[in-house]
Amino acid sequence: MPDAYIPRSDHRRSGPGARIQRPDRWNRPEARLLSPRSRIYRSVPVSGDVLAAARVLLAWDGTAYGGWQLQPNVETVQGAVERVLAQLMDRDRVIARAAGRLDAGVHAEAQVVSFAVMSRRTTRELFRGMNGLLPDDIACLALSSAADGYDPRRENCGKTYRYRFLVRENRCPFRRTRCWHLGRALDLESMRRAARWLLGAHDFTSFRASGCTALHPVRMIRSIELDLVGDEVHLVVHGNAFLRYQVRIMAGCLAEVGLGRQPPEWMGAVLAAADRNRAARTAPAHGLTLERVHFWSALDWEHGEDPGARSMRADVPSFALGNR
Amino acid sequence: MPDAYIPRSDHRRSGPGARIQRPDRWNRPEARLLSPRSRIYRSVPVSGDVLAAARVLLAWDGTAYGGWQLQPNVETVQGAVERVLAQLMDRDRVIARAAGRLDAGVHAEAQVVSFAVMSRRTTRELFRGMNGLLPDDIACLALSSAADGYDPRRENCGKTYRYRFLVRENRCPFRRTRCWHLGRALDLESMRRAARWLLGAHDFTSFRASGCTALHPVRMIRSIELDLVGDEVHLVVHGNAFLRYQVRIMAGCLAEVGLGRQPPEWMGAVLAAADRNRAARTAPAHGLTLERVHFWSALDWEHGEDPGARSMRADVPSFALGNR
Repeated sequence: MPDAYIPRSDHRRSGPGARIQRPDRWNRPEARLLSPRSRIYRSVPVSGDVLAAARVLLAWDGTAYGGWQLQPNVETVQGAVERVLAQLMDRDRVIARAAGRLDAGVHAEAQVVSFAVMSRRTTRELFRGMNGLLPDDIACLALSSAADGYDPRRENCGKTYRYRFLVRENRCPFRRTRCWHLGRALDLESMRRAARWLLGAHDFTSFRASGCTALHPVRMIRSIELDLVGDEVHLVVHGNAFLRYQVRIMAGCLAEVGLGRQPPEWMGAVLAAADRNRAARTAPAHGLTLERVHFWSALDWEHGEDPGARSMRADVPSFALGNR
Repeated sequence: MPDAYIPRSDHRRSGPGARIQRPDRWNRPEARLLSPRSRIYRSVPVSGDVLAAARVLLAWDGTAYGGWQLQPNVETVQGAVERVLAQLMDRDRVIARAAGRLDAGVHAEAQVVSFAVMSRRTTRELFRGMNGLLPDDIACLALSSAADGYDPRRENCGKTYRYRFLVRENRCPFRRTRCWHLGRALDLESMRRAARWLLGAHDFTSFRASGCTALHPVRMIRSIELDLVGDEVHLVVHGNAFLRYQVRIMAGCLAEVGLGRQPPEWMGAVLAAADRNRAARTAPAHGLTLERVHFWSALDWEHGEDPGARSMRADVPSFALGNR
C-alpha cells in the first residue's frame, strides 16, 4: 500500500504489526484511487496557519441521509461533508473520519469528525466555510485543530444515545422525524426495572443486527436512564461502544415492557439467551439521536460553541455502574 | 347562484344583503362545479350518527405546503384535508373552512377547521379516518360535531401567533424549519419597549403586505410578549385579527430593534407613518406558528386530546390591554 495516506501517529501507536491489522478494504484498488496520495499530502507545508488535522463537532438531521458512512447511490453525511471539505480545500477527495457510524435516519447532536487539512486556510475560515457550504440539515457546531492523524474513532471512550418515544395519543407533525410515536403511556417503573438487566458488561448477541460486523459481542453499558419529558419518554444510554442496532433493539424491547406485553424479568431472559430472535423488533431509526461522544479528557474548541461543553466535562466516565 | 351550498346560518346572520357581499369568486363557473350542490347535501338524512357539521383541531408543519388556502398547481393544507374528507365521505368534493388563512411555510399548532358531514360515519370514525389518511405532517388533534353551517372564521374572536428567533451563533439542523436563525443575541428590553407601541387598536398599514385584501387596516393587538426560551426568543402576539404578513413584518421590525439597528421609538414612527416602506423586511415564514384560535367560550371536543384545552379556557379574552 505504498501510495495510501497513513497518519503518522498510526505508525507510532500501532507498532510493527499495524499494516497487517488494517481492514482488507484498504487494499482494494478503488480505495487506493480515492485516498489522498501521500505525495500530494506531503507537498503541503505544515507551518503558520496550515494545520496537520482538524476536529469538528457536527450536528445533523438524519432524515434525508443513508447514515454516516459513504455508500454508492445513497446520499450520506460523510459524502456531503467530504464534498464540502474537498471544495474548501480544492482537492479531489478529503477523507472525513467520524467517532462512529450511524444508521440511516439516525440523528446526531454532537458527532466528532476529523480530517487532514490540506490547504492554507485558517481554522476560522474552515469553520465558516463548512457552515456556509453544508446543506441546512447538517451544521458544524465547533472546530479546532488536532494532531496529525487524529482519529476520533480510536480516541473516544464511549457514546451517549437518546431514544425518544412520543407517548400521547395524537401524533405531532413537528416531531414526526424525532420520536417513535407509540400513542399511549408507557409504564416507566417496569421499563426501569427491565433496563437494570442491561447495565454493565454483557454479551449483547440478542441485541445485535444480523449484519453486524463487530469482532465480538461484548459491550459495556455504563448507565441507562428512562424519564418522562413532557409527552415524551426518553431512554438515555451511555456505553463504551455499541453493536449495530443495539440501542434500537434495546428500545424495542423496553417498549414491549412499557406497554405491558412483557414483564421486566423478560429482559434478563432475552439477554441470557444470546439469540436475536428472542428480542423484540428493532425500534425505528428516526427516534434515535447520538447525543455525545465521550473522551478521556474534555475537548476544547477554537471556534463555535460546544452546546454540551459543560455536561461533557462532567461526563468523563466514572465507571460507576448501576448509578440509578 | 341557485346550486351553490350556502349554510343556513349565513342567511339568518347576514340579512338580505348577504348575497351581494359574497366574494365574486363564488360566482365563477368553476367554483359552482366544485361546490357540493344543495340537492346532494339535503339528500343526507340528519339523524342518529349523521351530523350536520364537524369541527376539527388540526396541527401541521407548513414546510411542504403553499399555505392553507386552495391554489392551482400548489399543494396546500386545504387541498390535502379536502381530499382526505372527500375520500372518507365518498364525495367528489368536501369544502373545509379554516378560522383563517396561513401563508406558505407557516405552521399551525391548533387551527380550527369545519366541514359539512355528508356521510353516515360517526365522529369517532371521522377522527380516526382523518388521522389514518392525512400525510404525517398534518395531524387531526381533536374532533367534535358542530351546528350546521358552523364557520370558525366567523365565530372566532382572535388568534395567537408565536414567532421564534434562534439567537445562538450555530444553526440547528432540527429547528431549521421552525426558527429564524439570527445568529446573535437580541436586546429583549429594547424589543419589549418597541412592542408597546403596537398594543391596542391601530391602523396597521405599515405592517401590511402590498397584496393584502382586507377591507380596512385597523386591527387590535391584545397582548405582545417577548421571552427568552433556551436559545430562542419567542414573540407571542394575541390580536382580534391580522392583516396579511402583519406578524411577520412586526417580527422583522422587532428584530431590527433587538439587533440594535433601530431604537425602540422607531416602532412608533413606523406605525404612525402608515407606510409599508418605513417598516423592516418581512421576517421569514418558517419562524411563524399559529398557536391558538380564540372563541368566546371554550370549545369542547368529543375525540382526541386538545393540547391547549386548559390554556384556551383561560384565554377567553379579557380585553385587558397593555398587560405587560
